Amino acid sequence: MSIALTPLEDKIIIKQAAAETQTASGLYIPDNAKEKPQQGEVLAVGPGRRDDKGERIPMDVKVGDKVLYSKYGGTEVHYQGEDYLIVGARDVLAILG
Amino acid sequence: MSIALTPLEDKIIIKQAAAETQTASGLYIPDNAKEKPQQGEVLAVGPGRRDDKGERIPMDVKVGDKVLYSKYGGTEVHYQGEDYLIVGARDVLAILG
Amino acid sequence: MSIALTPLEDKIIIKQAAAETQTASGLYIPDNAKEKPQQGEVLAVGPGRRDDKGERIPMDVKVGDKVLYSKYGGTEVHYQGEDYLIVGARDVLAILG
Amino acid sequence: MSIALTPLEDKIIIKQAAAETQTASGLYIPDNAKEKPQQGEVLAVGPGRRDDKGERIPMDVKVGDKVLYSKYGGTEVHYQGEDYLIVGARDVLAILG
Amino acid sequence: MSIALTPLEDKIIIKQAAAETQTASGLYIPDNAKEKPQQGEVLAVGPGRRDDKGERIPMDVKVGDKVLYSKYGGTEVHYQGEDYLIVGARDVLAILG
Amino acid sequence: MSIALTPLEDKIIIKQAAAETQTASGLYIPDNAKEKPQQGEVLAVGPGRRDDKGERIPMDVKVGDKVLYSKYGGTEVHYQGEDYLIVGARDVLAILG
Amino acid sequence: MSIALTPLEDKIIIKQAAAETQTASGLYIPDNAKEKPQQGEVLAVGPGRRDDKGERIPMDVKVGDKVLYSKYGGTEVHYQGEDYLIVGARDVLAILG
Repeated sequence: MSIALTPLEDKIIIKQAAAETQTASGLYIPDNAKEKPQQGEVLAVGPGRRDDKGERIPMDVKVGDKVLYSKYGGTEVHYQGEDYLIVGARDVLAILG
Repeated sequence: MSIALTPLEDKIIIKQAAAETQTASGLYIPDNAKEKPQQGEVLAVGPGRRDDKGERIPMDVKVGDKVLYSKYGGTEVHYQGEDYLIVGARDVLAILG
Repeated sequence: MSIALTPLEDKIIIKQAAAETQTASGLYIPDNAKEKPQQGEVLAVGPGRRDDKGERIPMDVKVGDKVLYSKYGGTEVHYQGEDYLIVGARDVLAILG
Repeated sequence: MSIALTPLEDKIIIKQAAAETQTASGLYIPDNAKEKPQQGEVLAVGPGRRDDKGERIPMDVKVGDKVLYSKYGGTEVHYQGEDYLIVGARDVLAILG
Repeated sequence: MSIALTPLEDKIIIKQAAAETQTASGLYIPDNAKEKPQQGEVLAVGPGRRDDKGERIPMDVKVGDKVLYSKYGGTEVHYQGEDYLIVGARDVLAILG
Repeated sequence: MSIALTPLEDKIIIKQAAAETQTASGLYIPDNAKEKPQQGEVLAVGPGRRDDKGERIPMDVKVGDKVLYSKYGGTEVHYQGEDYLIVGARDVLAILG
Repeated sequence: MSIALTPLEDKIIIKQAAAETQTASGLYIPDNAKEKPQQGEVLAVGPGRRDDKGERIPMDVKVGDKVLYSKYGGTEVHYQGEDYLIVGARDVLAILG
């Protein structure tokens, strides 16, 4: 799966897993959680934001990673029939597997 | 397309795409999105803001880029019959294509 | 006990101790405490977040540590029949024992 | 046009363009803009604020520049029959022409 | 007096003095004080938090110090029949004696 | 005019000009200004606050300067029959003349 | 006058001047002041807080200084029959005399 969007800085483009997929993988988010993380696949990764010396901070995720992310602060887009989420690097909590 | 405005620091001047153009390119923003990104073309790019050592941080977009940006924090101007948006570098989420 | 989740940055995955376990270990949180710390076992530890020079800050906890942590800011997940909490390094107050 | 006020740090003294002048130059601010930028001429420029090493950060505007600025955070003064606005360097969005 | 809890970063574990003890030592907190400091004994001291270079900042208190501290921001725990308070280094105002 | 108060850090002691004096110098503050700057004379200047390396940042005003300042954040004192204002260096907007 | 309290970091212990003393020295605080500074004598001075390199920032006041300070943020204590105030270095505005 590929996408014609190049993220900037530390932005990451995620294809959110469908509800059935989430059940299949065994991930379940309880209703009483303060913030509900979600599962998805990384489609594109920015070059990283620059540190105080102007050098890029390397990104910890790569295209193809299945990630647990927080929707908080993300931006939803619908592009050529698909929904995507653009999140910052700090919104990714963990890599599955 | 050119514009007689020179942005300062990391400011970027964007010509917002018309509604039809957005449909043609296949970008669609769902109504339930928290913050709706918009599509446009970069007309002018500032020299970059200075880091802690007083050196310019290079800009990641260039004139002519088609970008997905967040209107949040931007400033709208109408100049010689056209509408523009001035946004900071952090308001640009991704480059299309 | 192991888990198929790799935390990023300074994230820590904790298996919260059951209520009986907390009583057995003698830890008791009074009702009038402003913020109730909780006891659990560290299942996975991120590589540490990067400092201003881009180097990893070493983590002070390791897998297997019994910790006293603050739930504030953490994210609950339910994965393959178990509940976990993902917290940042600063949410761990002390190591037991 | 000159003014007997010496701005400090990164302060800039601006003579706001009259309403007719704004129409003549073709700049028009729509009513639905969140923050309305305004057009004016730079009369005096501070020496720049100091960076973390105590050195002055150079100013990007000079006396005589026609600028698009944000009134937000500025301070209005009336001096010898004229109105001026004192703004910080970050309140200047772009140089016209 | 010892405790089986190892504080992290710049955390300090304090055994709060009983009300009688406070009277005996002559410390009295007036009712109209905005924030009431309290007296206690330091039981355990973290290794210090890391500065921007990743080195530990030395702690200014040591085990056994009688301290005047602010409860604001601290976390109360009850462990094996005793009450403790976990505070950050900045919550300790002064060492008595 | 002198004063027996030595300001610390980047504090500046100002003798506020009387209302008549303000009219004489031609400075007039319109009622609709968000924050009204005021005119006064600098009586004493602190040594400057220290930067990240512990060195003093030089002050841009000197004793005797007539300044335009913002009262916001200042502290009024009445000492030996006179009113003064103690402001931080950032509250001084411009030097007159 | 001495005190058996050792302040930490940049904390300063002040013995507040009695109301009569304030009148005698000619200091008078008008009722309409936003924040009322107060006069007192410095009894104890902390070693200074550490800068980003871990070195102590020298303190600008010394034991015995008569100071004008802001009560805002300070903590009142009553110890062996006397009232004291513990303030941070930034709460001291000026040294008298």
